[in-house]
Amino acid sequence: MTYLTSTDEHAVEIVNLKSLEALVKERMVAQGNRGAFGYLRGAAEDEWTLRENTESFNRKTIVPRVLRGIDSADLSTSIFGIPLKTPIIQAPVAAQGLAHMEGEVDTAKGMEKVGSLFSISTYGSTTVEEAAEAVNGAPQFFQLYMSKDDEFNQYLLNKAVKAGVKAIILTADSTLGGYREEDVVSKFQFPIPMKNLESYSVTDGVGKGIFEIFGAAKQGLVLDDIQKIKNWTNLPVLVKGIQSPIDALEAITAGADGIWVSNHGGRQLDGGPASFDVLPAIAAVVKKRVPIVFDSGVRRGEHVFKALASGADLVAIGRPIIWGLNLGGADGVASVVEHLNHELSITMQLAGAKDIESVKTTELL
Amino acid sequence: MTYLTSTDEHAVEIVNLKSLEALVKERMVAQGNRGAFGYLRGAAEDEWTLRENTESFNRKTIVPRVLRGIDSADLSTSIFGIPLKTPIIQAPVAAQGLAHMEGEVDTAKGMEKVGSLFSISTYGSTTVEEAAEAVNGAPQFFQLYMSKDDEFNQYLLNKAVKAGVKAIILTADSTLGGYREEDVVSKFQFPIPMKNLESYSVTDGVGKGIFEIFGAAKQGLVLDDIQKIKNWTNLPVLVKGIQSPIDALEAITAGADGIWVSNHGGRQLDGGPASFDVLPAIAAVVKKRVPIVFDSGVRRGEHVFKALASGADLVAIGRPIIWGLNLGGADGVASVVEHLNHELSITMQLAGAKDIESVKTTELL
Amino acid sequence: MTYLTSTDEHAVEIVNLKSLEALVKERMVAQGNRGAFGYLRGAAEDEWTLRENTESFNRKTIVPRVLRGIDSADLSTSIFGIPLKTPIIQAPVAAQGLAHMEGEVDTAKGMEKVGSLFSISTYGSTTVEEAAEAVNGAPQFFQLYMSKDDEFNQYLLNKAVKAGVKAIILTADSTLGGYREEDVVSKFQFPIPMKNLESYSVTDGVGKGIFEIFGAAKQGLVLDDIQKIKNWTNLPVLVKGIQSPIDALEAITAGADGIWVSNHGGRQLDGGPASFDVLPAIAAVVKKRVPIVFDSGVRRGEHVFKALASGADLVAIGRPIIWGLNLGGADGVASVVEHLNHELSITMQLAGAKDIESVKTTELL
Amino acid sequence: MTYLTSTDEHAVEIVNLKSLEALVKERMVAQGNRGAFGYLRGAAEDEWTLRENTESFNRKTIVPRVLRGIDSADLSTSIFGIPLKTPIIQAPVAAQGLAHMEGEVDTAKGMEKVGSLFSISTYGSTTVEEAAEAVNGAPQFFQLYMSKDDEFNQYLLNKAVKAGVKAIILTADSTLGGYREEDVVSKFQFPIPMKNLESYSVTDGVGKGIFEIFGAAKQGLVLDDIQKIKNWTNLPVLVKGIQSPIDALEAITAGADGIWVSNHGGRQLDGGPASFDVLPAIAAVVKKRVPIVFDSGVRRGEHVFKALASGADLVAIGRPIIWGLNLGGADGVASVVEHLNHELSITMQLAGAKDIESVKTTELL
Repeated sequence: MTYLTSTDEHAVEIVNLKSLEALVKERMVAQGNRGAFGYLRGAAEDEWTLRENTESFNRKTIVPRVLRGIDSADLSTSIFGIPLKTPIIQAPVAAQGLAHMEGEVDTAKGMEKVGSLFSISTYGSTTVEEAAEAVNGAPQFFQLYMSKDDEFNQYLLNKAVKAGVKAIILTADSTLGGYREEDVVSKFQFPIPMKNLESYSVTDGVGKGIFEIFGAAKQGLVLDDIQKIKNWTNLPVLVKGIQSPIDALEAITAGADGIWVSNHGGRQLDGGPASFDVLPAIAAVVKKRVPIVFDSGVRRGEHVFKALASGADLVAIGRPIIWGLNLGGADGVASVVEHLNHELSITMQLAGAKDIESVKTTELL
Repeated sequence: MTYLTSTDEHAVEIVNLKSLEALVKERMVAQGNRGAFGYLRGAAEDEWTLRENTESFNRKTIVPRVLRGIDSADLSTSIFGIPLKTPIIQAPVAAQGLAHMEGEVDTAKGMEKVGSLFSISTYGSTTVEEAAEAVNGAPQFFQLYMSKDDEFNQYLLNKAVKAGVKAIILTADSTLGGYREEDVVSKFQFPIPMKNLESYSVTDGVGKGIFEIFGAAKQGLVLDDIQKIKNWTNLPVLVKGIQSPIDALEAITAGADGIWVSNHGGRQLDGGPASFDVLPAIAAVVKKRVPIVFDSGVRRGEHVFKALASGADLVAIGRPIIWGLNLGGADGVASVVEHLNHELSITMQLAGAKDIESVKTTELL
Repeated sequence: MTYLTSTDEHAVEIVNLKSLEALVKERMVAQGNRGAFGYLRGAAEDEWTLRENTESFNRKTIVPRVLRGIDSADLSTSIFGIPLKTPIIQAPVAAQGLAHMEGEVDTAKGMEKVGSLFSISTYGSTTVEEAAEAVNGAPQFFQLYMSKDDEFNQYLLNKAVKAGVKAIILTADSTLGGYREEDVVSKFQFPIPMKNLESYSVTDGVGKGIFEIFGAAKQGLVLDDIQKIKNWTNLPVLVKGIQSPIDALEAITAGADGIWVSNHGGRQLDGGPASFDVLPAIAAVVKKRVPIVFDSGVRRGEHVFKALASGADLVAIGRPIIWGLNLGGADGVASVVEHLNHELSITMQLAGAKDIESVKTTELL
Repeated sequence: MTYLTSTDEHAVEIVNLKSLEALVKERMVAQGNRGAFGYLRGAAEDEWTLRENTESFNRKTIVPRVLRGIDSADLSTSIFGIPLKTPIIQAPVAAQGLAHMEGEVDTAKGMEKVGSLFSISTYGSTTVEEAAEAVNGAPQFFQLYMSKDDEFNQYLLNKAVKAGVKAIILTADSTLGGYREEDVVSKFQFPIPMKNLESYSVTDGVGKGIFEIFGAAKQGLVLDDIQKIKNWTNLPVLVKGIQSPIDALEAITAGADGIWVSNHGGRQLDGGPASFDVLPAIAAVVKKRVPIVFDSGVRRGEHVFKALASGADLVAIGRPIIWGLNLGGADGVASVVEHLNHELSITMQLAGAKDIESVKTTELL
């Protein structure tokens, strides 16, 4: 049976990001896609880490500074020399075709509209080539779930390089699926193919659960895999899923060009720390040698500000962008980032930070 | 269409200040003024800082002292040589015509009745002259939202000086409107003019939202603006919206005659600290060189006591006074202060503090 | 109109002390005594300190010790040489006639039954003589609310001495009534006389609220009042309502024979610390020179244990004993203490403390 | 009247352990066994320590480590030279016949199925011989509630030795029954015999409450009892119910071969610390001289991980195994351990710990 989901293509009026989840739930359940919604929304076990991810931002406060002559807030920044209009980028999310018939194509277009960065997942509903063709040279990264089969890894990375991606994101935190109870209860299986897989002689994921998908990937990832990918692609490699300062150090020593601090939105290890709580210690050891991308729990411009002030260079958004995708396609994705940009720029003005550099040097209380 | 709101003029029986909000909500909604009520009540984003403002008082406790021969509590105090019967003053609030047909005129009269201080906002529904004429020489301050246009600033301050105000309050925390979701949802626009604006060739605010109003004001406020205002007016200048000790120090160095510790009742930057939490560190750097006014979250005489014991010289009340204005006009405003005075005097007696100086030297636990 | 309340006289089956309040509420409301119940139950303002009083016990834990050869728990102890079968005594409570037609007479009998201590309040529904006559030589203390009129104070203390009380409790924390909202809302006035007052030319309290009663008493209590009472009575004087180590020290220096750590069950100053939270610091300055009685918030044998382990010599119970009085008269009062004794003895056995001295030397975590 | 309970014998589908309690409650209440369910589920007084036991695991977090080449997680371990397939063992629970007609026989079989350890209680519904015969040489321990009568103790231990148990667990925390309100309210009495008792001239417990059962046992346990048991049995002795580092030290000095950190699942002393909170300090003094078994509050593989990382060598499960027993007999017991094994192995893989030794050397945050 064909999987049917949103085909909406329009800007979305947004009061705040948290309110989008309920809207999307209603729509997806009405279309019979409760399991798919659960997969997109859910997290591991008690979802304690999921909640902590957002709660943790309340443990630090922004002390507003005044009379500093701030006329307006400049959100522009860059990574690896790529200029971005905002520090808010998209976190790679698998199987976006669950949320919208256009899948990653629309997400890529949305991120292009706002002058920001799109990353395509190995487990995307769209090939890396299709995502690249959807936009006119806007920057894209490729998120690699490494296979046990190095030939397949090379095949895949080769496609990504040819498609013109600017960096590789090596996912390190998912050598096994987290124990996500909502998927267990709904017995969720992917109803649509993972197109990057189907072009090779591997399963395309249809009819599999996430636990099987991750099980088929490589468990025993090692630090040397970083250099291996660099050699294969000649591209910068970010290691995604770092929560420990030691891992950050070792990854940099092993050649990582960027550290992506993330706990996979609480979807992998429950009972681990909030991602925001570990960021300062990681930033302290990274010492600005490579850029830090941060994700997990960000729902407010205020959270973006606090992450930047705690050591992040870019801040990635996962689920809320998928909600925007469902609600309005490419324009919906853009609406989500624009709304966060709006909140961030108000926060910056009221905090007395005129640009991203100023935000980064703000001390939180 | 004419905006209709309360015309009540009578004392209000008050059990506690928190209970007033629901009463006023019921009345304003019944009169069709839900949006106006939302504007008066609301705060920024998740309203986390709003809640923290009041919650934070629970993080310090008053250790009662006994057998100290306290016969009664004397609440009298002063600022800039102006005697006051109570340390509880009124925090300037814009557009009080939303709550009562008499607007600031009644608030001014109410504060006169209790021998305390009234401050009129640039964005008041009443002109500074009307407010001054409403009372017979009772002390008033003028709260300035600085314009991009210095000629207008001088015009406005000149009016204030002629009206006889005793000090200028420079609002530093509102170079942009906070992201107040209740206003966003209700698409709130001011239904009544801001009379101090309409006498000059600027918009009087009718049909505008608060985000536009603040947008029209000066964003790039600087420390030198303090001295500029002092030169123009020859009056003491308090800087309102200070949350950082560094800002307090710099403002004093730049000539400020008073520091007003406030986060605008949580209406501007959400995710900032509770105002009470930052007060001790600010008091520590101010070192009694200039008076400190405190606001944000005060709902109990106990809160007034704790703020005074943490470094404040005066404590200002915002929303609850507006609730009193709605419920009973000038007498309602007086009822609110009298009730707080009652709670404060009981707290002082039970804590063993005979006057405001004793309160200030009380150590909290 | 005559005030009618419980006449029950029987033992009460008790699961735990917290459950008694709801039972009593139902009974007293059914008899038309909602206001009287509110007066007995209520506390000041937000009742934050009331709640903290009990919550605070959770901030310390008893680390159970094992294999220490504890055969059974011995609860006996003493104060001023008076042997007691339990460290659990009764906290003086005014106007017990509100809860039971026999008032303090039954409470005194109940405390005698369990071999513990009864204290009669100046504001009791029963005279000190009647309470003394109710029992056959069981120890009683007299709680003094000092009057502005020293002749009345002497008259009253003289009655107490003649009635045979063993000590005087000087109430130091109530020079004014706390702001108790439940009484304000119900406009509670005492429906029955305070008999110790009516024998002298002062109001007996009928038709007055607690705020007026306390207002008629002496506000400006001083340290010298301790010695004055000792001279008048030649009895040990305990100062009740101590929350500050400095006050404890000064009271001892001024001649106090005992320190009663209490915040009046949260009925006086709201926003003050939990009584249990200040106990260790007070015990540290008292250094066992005089006994410490503790009250406020105790609802479990575990709480008694924790208070004793934090420096208390005796632990007093207020409201729950009044609930026992209402439910079963003298036997009901005894049931409450017996239940707490039962919980305490289990706690001692499981904690590995064989007697009250062992409890006092237990270190909490 | 004969007591009737579950006779189910099948594997149980488990989403998480917490959800089992409600299922079992529904079944047992439907069979008229509400009191028995209450006895199995309940804990002492306010059940604060019960809740803290599980909550406390949230006070430490597992910082996931990545790129460490972990291919799979090996759960095998051992105690006293006995190999175990998992560090998750069964905590001895009395009267398992309440949950299933086969009682401890099925639990023993279930633990054998998963290659783990079963311990039979003195107060079991099954004799130690029956439990031993149920399995084919799978390891079992015997949990001793010591009697006042040493002849009975020797008689009982002799039976256990002959039945082939590998170690004796001396229960030290239950010289009296905790004050369990659910049993008090339901007036719970054991409807089935404790078979280890009935073969000797002592009560078999039928028609008694737990408070009477424990009352009949020896209160004054001493350190010398450890050596006494060792002499009688020539078996290793674990002391169960240790919460204090001093007790752990003294028990080892007195000859204990293992320390069992437990607060009896919150069933004994309420107001004591969470068992997990005291584990690190105990491990610090034990210094790996003897193995540490941990129980109380464990409901997740994540909790097992955190306990092992805090000093435990084995982690025991109480109530959830009884729920499994009720839901599916021996297979249900196995399902519970298998589910926890599954969660634990995911946690290990995601945390970067390849075996139990690695878990033990993981530092929590």
